[in-house]
Amino acid sequence: MMPTRRYAFGRVDEVTHPDSIRATLAEFISTLIFVFAGEGSLLALDKIYKDDGTSAGELVAIALAHAFSLFAAIASSMNVSGGHVNPAVTFGALLGGRISALRALYYWVAQLLGAVVASLLLRLCTNNMRPDAFHVSYGIAEFHGLVFEIVMTFGMMYTVYATAIDPKRGSLGIIAPLAIAFIVGANILVGGPFDGASMNPARAFGPALVGGRWHNHWIYWVGPFIGAGLAGLVYEYMVIPTETPLTHQPLAPEDY
Amino acid sequence: MMPTRRYAFGRVDEVTHPDSIRATLAEFISTLIFVFAGEGSLLALDKIYKDDGTSAGELVAIALAHAFSLFAAIASSMNVSGGHVNPAVTFGALLGGRISALRALYYWVAQLLGAVVASLLLRLCTNNMRPDAFHVSYGIAEFHGLVFEIVMTFGMMYTVYATAIDPKRGSLGIIAPLAIAFIVGANILVGGPFDGASMNPARAFGPALVGGRWHNHWIYWVGPFIGAGLAGLVYEYMVIPTETPLTHQPLAPEDY
Amino acid sequence: MMPTRRYAFGRVDEVTHPDSIRATLAEFISTLIFVFAGEGSLLALDKIYKDDGTSAGELVAIALAHAFSLFAAIASSMNVSGGHVNPAVTFGALLGGRISALRALYYWVAQLLGAVVASLLLRLCTNNMRPDAFHVSYGIAEFHGLVFEIVMTFGMMYTVYATAIDPKRGSLGIIAPLAIAFIVGANILVGGPFDGASMNPARAFGPALVGGRWHNHWIYWVGPFIGAGLAGLVYEYMVIPTETPLTHQPLAPEDY
Amino acid sequence: MMPTRRYAFGRVDEVTHPDSIRATLAEFISTLIFVFAGEGSLLALDKIYKDDGTSAGELVAIALAHAFSLFAAIASSMNVSGGHVNPAVTFGALLGGRISALRALYYWVAQLLGAVVASLLLRLCTNNMRPDAFHVSYGIAEFHGLVFEIVMTFGMMYTVYATAIDPKRGSLGIIAPLAIAFIVGANILVGGPFDGASMNPARAFGPALVGGRWHNHWIYWVGPFIGAGLAGLVYEYMVIPTETPLTHQPLAPEDY
Repeated sequence: MMPTRRYAFGRVDEVTHPDSIRATLAEFISTLIFVFAGEGSLLALDKIYKDDGTSAGELVAIALAHAFSLFAAIASSMNVSGGHVNPAVTFGALLGGRISALRALYYWVAQLLGAVVASLLLRLCTNNMRPDAFHVSYGIAEFHGLVFEIVMTFGMMYTVYATAIDPKRGSLGIIAPLAIAFIVGANILVGGPFDGASMNPARAFGPALVGGRWHNHWIYWVGPFIGAGLAGLVYEYMVIPTETPLTHQPLAPEDY
Repeated sequence: MMPTRRYAFGRVDEVTHPDSIRATLAEFISTLIFVFAGEGSLLALDKIYKDDGTSAGELVAIALAHAFSLFAAIASSMNVSGGHVNPAVTFGALLGGRISALRALYYWVAQLLGAVVASLLLRLCTNNMRPDAFHVSYGIAEFHGLVFEIVMTFGMMYTVYATAIDPKRGSLGIIAPLAIAFIVGANILVGGPFDGASMNPARAFGPALVGGRWHNHWIYWVGPFIGAGLAGLVYEYMVIPTETPLTHQPLAPEDY
Repeated sequence: MMPTRRYAFGRVDEVTHPDSIRATLAEFISTLIFVFAGEGSLLALDKIYKDDGTSAGELVAIALAHAFSLFAAIASSMNVSGGHVNPAVTFGALLGGRISALRALYYWVAQLLGAVVASLLLRLCTNNMRPDAFHVSYGIAEFHGLVFEIVMTFGMMYTVYATAIDPKRGSLGIIAPLAIAFIVGANILVGGPFDGASMNPARAFGPALVGGRWHNHWIYWVGPFIGAGLAGLVYEYMVIPTETPLTHQPLAPEDY
Repeated sequence: MMPTRRYAFGRVDEVTHPDSIRATLAEFISTLIFVFAGEGSLLALDKIYKDDGTSAGELVAIALAHAFSLFAAIASSMNVSGGHVNPAVTFGALLGGRISALRALYYWVAQLLGAVVASLLLRLCTNNMRPDAFHVSYGIAEFHGLVFEIVMTFGMMYTVYATAIDPKRGSLGIIAPLAIAFIVGANILVGGPFDGASMNPARAFGPALVGGRWHNHWIYWVGPFIGAGLAGLVYEYMVIPTETPLTHQPLAPEDY
């Protein structure tokens, strides 16, 4: 069930193993589905309003589009690839020793490609609307946006680790995709008006490339990687109880 | 558990077998429940506003009405009929060899009938309001709407396959109805302002028939069938690992 | 597991049996929690706006308040009382032979009492705001409201039966409280602007009594009872496969 | 599984036991994640509007931010600390005898610290926006706010007990984090316009300290503690069936 957990660079046959290919394909399709809905929800609101203002109703629409589609994307790929759908999650899992460097590389390429294809498809079916890209709002410096991305991605990756990776997660793993998706939705309701709330370099990269908008772009790589890496290290080395044998644990600890 | 999976046309006794009849009845009632709420939410907003404009709040209301009712409809019929509630899902399952052609035929009739009865009931209890039908928005060509329906239905059917059909789905099947319903909700937040976001020929057909509105109607058959068929073939032949024995798989793969 | 299912009037010792008392208490508290949130959300919007208009945003707020609180209320009482939280659900379960007449009586009293206490508590903590009660909208006759309540409650009770009562529901029972709560939320987004969308005589009775508003009140008893009764009979006698032995069934039927 | 349940003051080695430290760390991080999103959603709306009005859309945004993030926070700490994320929940569990006084003390410090750090982080990344704090609205006395907090926290703690603590909760424990989070979301849609709807002293304390706003602050300690304590006592001593042996119970009782 849980053989050697840490890899330096993956198994020799990992490159062409069908499982690796299927997992990579799953990451590609899931990220495509997520970015199509997430970025698409911004274009849909542009289509309605044709102006730059934001309202609480729009914020809710954007948060729900991201949360709902991310839930489906993670649930769809959970059993095949681990349901990362996000280069920062892959990075956190890499730092925590839960995935080999080679497989991480595969996933990153697949996730970025999925986000680019989603953005191209959006451009095609919206009659050539130019995708929006993340940037910090008026009154907010790049530093603030960076801290936002770090804190929000930390919260997301901590949820990923606790509900989907922790060997003691037990039956809570069933609701892991929902918990991960909902913390992303919640964080969009917070960070949205400040820096757009990406928490996901692929989500930021696809529309930036297809829309040709690179302002503040580095924030949406550095922030999520720091936040997810930090969460991976904290959970892996401080929260997971290594001395306890990996038996099934009940949902709520009764033996306080 | 999983005998012969592919059928040419179903078992001889399938026509009158109680299981077939019950499954068909379940598809009829579930589609009725879903279309009543989905189409009904449009009429409810018409009742409030009596104008043609759309706002983010209305978009959220429509997306939630569809997602919430589809979740209940799929959950209710999951164990009886597989929880299709959508002719395109039935088509994708047929292409992937997961359902016989005869049963598909039964389901299609039941789904269309459920949608028509739902639309008639809406007409009855709203004091004869004429149902809306899907059509592409101003500035969007039929081609764009078609691509929208293909991409969105692909995402939905991929989720169906991964969470509800894949024999390796394990306990994730418990949240399958929610994942399917939420990707539909997310996609409505995207495609809504462009082409209405149907992803379901029955959802489009019932109100079109009862409201007598057939403009652009073919899109909402061709698009979903292409998208769902594509997803069925991709998942069945590329993602499902056939060489692995069908044992229970943990939620997150630890043996990277 | 499933001894004699049908009762004429309950066991002799049922009146004072601790299980009956606990179940009745659970129905009382759960209905209190649900009606406090459901009716309270109307008063909260009155507090913001102080006018009679309704917007899509308000409709969403009301639907979510009902769906979210009903989910918690059902989940909380599921294992103790079956999670009815609604006299119409109790009636449907009675018609389907799933509950004794005596226990149904207990539940009804507890549910109505919970709704009344919730309405009184609302009056107390909102500084004496008068609760709203359900009534049909302008342009809608009582007959239309009645049909609305019948159809919407049918959909809800069908979901109750399929996900929470059906002995073959399997692990789908875990998401039953969510499915039931979400179909109620979806139906509020539909019926809200027409007749308020109650689907629950206790939800209608408490605020009507405390607010002293009885206009159209009979609709909210007769409609839900007809709808839930119909769903109970249809599901119990047409959908549940009685000839199949009650073994565990997989989530999606593979043996089409 | 369930040894001695009631403690006077905890085990001697509990202070330095790795499990206690990990549980305390989990409470700290989970409360941080929750308060960051909850309080952050208020600041996000201030950023959009820069005015004091509230709309239904804003109410929905705030309720969803709290519900979604609380769900992730509880799910993340469920298996490690029991997923309290709230001093009132810890108090209710203490009164019900489900946690030792020493561990409760640990949790309280961790929860308050998490809320303070979250508020400081918000101040940092929003370019020094001053956090809002809970207070009663115009037209509402402190007494009304107190009753609101008592009733709403009672409903939340009752849900905690029924779905996450009750030894007979069975597989419903899987959806416990969602049920708890959603009743909080529902109650915010009710109490929000009246007293802000905290139900959580840590949620109230962090922003009050960092924002320096202490008006009505005592309500948000006394109310939740009364409500949660009451729910803990009622559920522990009236609803939990002590005479029944602790075997697995099916989701819906069939043996009425």
